Amino acid sequence: MKLYDCKAAANPRSIRMALAEKAIDVECVQIDLFKGEQHGEAFRKINPFGSVPCLELDDGAVIGESAAIARYLEARQPQPRLLGSTPKEQAVIAMWQRRVEDGVLNAATTFFHHATSGLGETGRYRNADWGQANKKRFVDALGMLDRQLAGRAYVAGDGFSFADITAICGIDFAKAVGIELPDGLPNLKAWHARISSRPSASA
Amino acid sequence: MKLYDCKAAANPRSIRMALAEKAIDVECVQIDLFKGEQHGEAFRKINPFGSVPCLELDDGAVIGESAAIARYLEARQPQPRLLGSTPKEQAVIAMWQRRVEDGVLNAATTFFHHATSGLGETGRYRNADWGQANKKRFVDALGMLDRQLAGRAYVAGDGFSFADITAICGIDFAKAVGIELPDGLPNLKAWHARISSRPSASA
Repeated sequence: MKLYDCKAAANPRSIRMALAEKAIDVECVQIDLFKGEQHGEAFRKINPFGSVPCLELDDGAVIGESAAIARYLEARQPQPRLLGSTPKEQAVIAMWQRRVEDGVLNAATTFFHHATSGLGETGRYRNADWGQANKKRFVDALGMLDRQLAGRAYVAGDGFSFADITAICGIDFAKAVGIELPDGLPNLKAWHARISSRPSASA
Repeated sequence: MKLYDCKAAANPRSIRMALAEKAIDVECVQIDLFKGEQHGEAFRKINPFGSVPCLELDDGAVIGESAAIARYLEARQPQPRLLGSTPKEQAVIAMWQRRVEDGVLNAATTFFHHATSGLGETGRYRNADWGQANKKRFVDALGMLDRQLAGRAYVAGDGFSFADITAICGIDFAKAVGIELPDGLPNLKAWHARISSRPSASA
């Protein structure tokens, strides 16, 4: 397997973390999003959608979309589980995964692409007001997460999951593009320190 | 189990279709989104996120987010499979599910909420330009789907899946809120007729 990756981006980091948690070793190929390499002919042959991460399987098939890659890794190597075991665990993790993907990670990347110069592309549709609305959406989602983490060590259920990975990738990306964690949020901050101390967090 | 539902909305329909495909019978409770019932105190006790669909399990736990509910139903009753069997099938379906959720269904609902009067709420943030951009995003996604459906009976892999369900729910919702299918797109239109003829399509 081969992972098309970009060290600075939020979604590829979520897959590097999942791989590290499962101790799966794959070749990583860096795609320079700031130079537009994802739009180039060579990469479009690999993923016509021009996005990273994507995972090239040994048969040549290419899986895009972080949640789909996480699902593949879980099905190929279930332990340690990142997407739950019982039907209810799987559902609770999928629910929180979707909530943090939307409210935290996507909100942060939307702020980046619409309210800042983003990747530096010219001629792309930008909506600065929508970008700023997503900064607010991101901050609101942090409050929601802080409430969810009251008395809980992890975002979804009793164990560490891909929902924790998606959330920390979104939060750290937001910081990198200029959105600091607001004051307060004690549960979120304790959780953030806990997740950051995992070896996979530096993958 | 009990499904909190809204007959006119796109996401709840996707769960009604999944339930029909699997022949799972659950009590459906209608929540009137146009009257703001989802924001009322009674419903907020069930789902603080104020969204439908959500599925109340027999132990009282409530699962929100369509993809999470679909995951729960698949884990509880795997046959007929809507989310794939082998790791690669699961990944391909999850990838296309995410693509049509984003580019088709979410683009259509974003158009509805931002470029039209939506559910009729007052005082909510609206960004008409973002709404119109999503109409374009929706139409672009239909072109992408038409190419994907060349020589294929279903969106993801060889069989009918939750990706087909999500796509048709987005397309039919778009039509209901004023976005007609563009000319052309022969593969997409043949697929649409095929999926519409399934008994679950009228669930």
